[in-house]
Amino acid sequence: MVLVEVAQLRGIVLDVLLTHDVPEQAARLQTDLLIAAELGGHPSHGVLRLRRIIERIRAGVSDPCATGQHAWTGTALLDVDGQQGLGPVVAMSALDAIRERARTTGVAAAVIRHNNHLGMLSWYVEQVARDGQVGIATCTSEALVHPWGGRRPLIGTNPIAIGVPAAPQPLVFDMATGLVSMGKIHDHAQRGLALRPGWALDADGEPTTDARAAVNGAIAPFGGAKGYALGLSLEVLVATLTASAAGTEVRGTLDSDQPSSKGDVFIVFDRPQQAVVEAMGEYLQSIRDTEPTTGTTSVLVPGDRARLRRELTLDRGVEVTDEVWRDLSALGKPPGIPPVKAKSEHR
Amino acid sequence: MVLVEVAQLRGIVLDVLLTHDVPEQAARLQTDLLIAAELGGHPSHGVLRLRRIIERIRAGVSDPCATGQHAWTGTALLDVDGQQGLGPVVAMSALDAIRERARTTGVAAAVIRHNNHLGMLSWYVEQVARDGQVGIATCTSEALVHPWGGRRPLIGTNPIAIGVPAAPQPLVFDMATGLVSMGKIHDHAQRGLALRPGWALDADGEPTTDARAAVNGAIAPFGGAKGYALGLSLEVLVATLTASAAGTEVRGTLDSDQPSSKGDVFIVFDRPQQAVVEAMGEYLQSIRDTEPTTGTTSVLVPGDRARLRRELTLDRGVEVTDEVWRDLSALGKPPGIPPVKAKSEHR
Repeated sequence: MVLVEVAQLRGIVLDVLLTHDVPEQAARLQTDLLIAAELGGHPSHGVLRLRRIIERIRAGVSDPCATGQHAWTGTALLDVDGQQGLGPVVAMSALDAIRERARTTGVAAAVIRHNNHLGMLSWYVEQVARDGQVGIATCTSEALVHPWGGRRPLIGTNPIAIGVPAAPQPLVFDMATGLVSMGKIHDHAQRGLALRPGWALDADGEPTTDARAAVNGAIAPFGGAKGYALGLSLEVLVATLTASAAGTEVRGTLDSDQPSSKGDVFIVFDRPQQAVVEAMGEYLQSIRDTEPTTGTTSVLVPGDRARLRRELTLDRGVEVTDEVWRDLSALGKPPGIPPVKAKSEHR
Repeated sequence: MVLVEVAQLRGIVLDVLLTHDVPEQAARLQTDLLIAAELGGHPSHGVLRLRRIIERIRAGVSDPCATGQHAWTGTALLDVDGQQGLGPVVAMSALDAIRERARTTGVAAAVIRHNNHLGMLSWYVEQVARDGQVGIATCTSEALVHPWGGRRPLIGTNPIAIGVPAAPQPLVFDMATGLVSMGKIHDHAQRGLALRPGWALDADGEPTTDARAAVNGAIAPFGGAKGYALGLSLEVLVATLTASAAGTEVRGTLDSDQPSSKGDVFIVFDRPQQAVVEAMGEYLQSIRDTEPTTGTTSVLVPGDRARLRRELTLDRGVEVTDEVWRDLSALGKPPGIPPVKAKSEHR
């Protein structure tokens, strides 16, 4: 592992993107998203992704200059052709439009197709919630999850995120509907660790604890039959609203040469009354303050863990794997400066 | 158990409501909802609930003549004061308004407070989906679920439902975010059955398999930490949007004398293109057709089970418990006709 100061890592990622002719504003957004994932303790959605982003630009299946074509199909519904732009660039452009629109319509939504990987959905809904509005986000992804009772991967890991303002800290919820991520399976395979029973099936659809066998198999849905039904329902909801692909037809977030065929959906509600924002803060605090079970030190609410982790990482710096560090050097200008112990970054 | 023909049961429930001065249209809606629950195999949301509905009317905390006061706080956002009306009456009035509005706004939402129990959310989103639009519904309920790592019930069983048109049958998803229902705990207590480990805590917040001890305790969230985070996020989302109560402040669906303080949220998207509706039907069929795991006979998609059950029940009749059957007699005019083997009901 290499320990890198946050500001330095940010500079390296930004340089790589600028080197590949990504316009500065787009490069800054994409960098913010990747660094936010590292800060929140989600390296699977962090700078690890930069290599694929660059490969897709080089292969011409991602257009770093596109911001998405907007069409209001209803006064509160924005239809977006993402034009294979960068995920956060297309998404933030759409999100800005519906946040503004929701001020008069009360609720507004964006349905997006032909857009690249969004990264962490929490990044979007947290910004909406910090700005005082309520945000919901969901999207499809490559089929990696098996149906409850089935053998084959037919459903994406389809995440859902909800951001709600609360005083002093917003509720920021973000989860995938797979029991574990394929990233975790790969990580276990690489480190020679066994999977827990129930996590995955092998390529023949048989239960396995061998991570290398699971890489070509399927992940279990979280929460059994209920979680399966939720994940599948999000797949059908998103594919329907965005008129994009579903199931095994979804491409473009795990490969470097296929146009993206997934869909993204954002819903924004205009700002609640301040009294409600304060009441929700108190309710969330009452949950943090509840007596924990034996063996549990504290009860957290959605957003707490990432916030704590962020403070820690800003202080300590980001740990990146040797492989990712080599990638960063190979992809852009060599960082030149050796990694140092980070102090703190003000933002 | 008493086996009752569907048409007869429908007539009995309707009579009970009319006897208590529920206006005919409202009585028909409430009856449809309760019968639909029986048909779909969800007796916990069926005629069992009639006694509480009547007790609440008698106690003056439910107003069977109210349909809810509508105020458009944005062109696509309907704010509803339910005026303590009957759940399905207030909800259908709001849902009708936003279904119509979504035709021009593309997406529209209703946020409802002071409304009585909605019953099965699938009943609402299925109607939206059968009519070609896309529906999402969620609501809060009394705190019965403990936070992940906590001992006390602080979160509702907050269900979420999604209905999406698909050819030939819509996707109809509806789940509570508790691992099991309190109805099931009560049922186990009554029948002297043990709970499965992990289902519930006792009044001291300790794990228990004794159903009688769990009745005064807390239900586990479904899906572990993820399911907890989803259920809590729905609680905060709904309470915020509807400016209604959260956590242990929620009243009015499990008692007969408190005004309802929960919230309901509906979101409707206007109709997708027919080609998409057909593609989604094919995708869902590919999931039904996938090879099942050893020991599983078939893979279902959300809505299948209730549909199969409905056909069976229409043919065979509804089984109601002796207790519910006595309630029905006590609440309204005595049915007079002894229960007979049902044939079929055409609707």
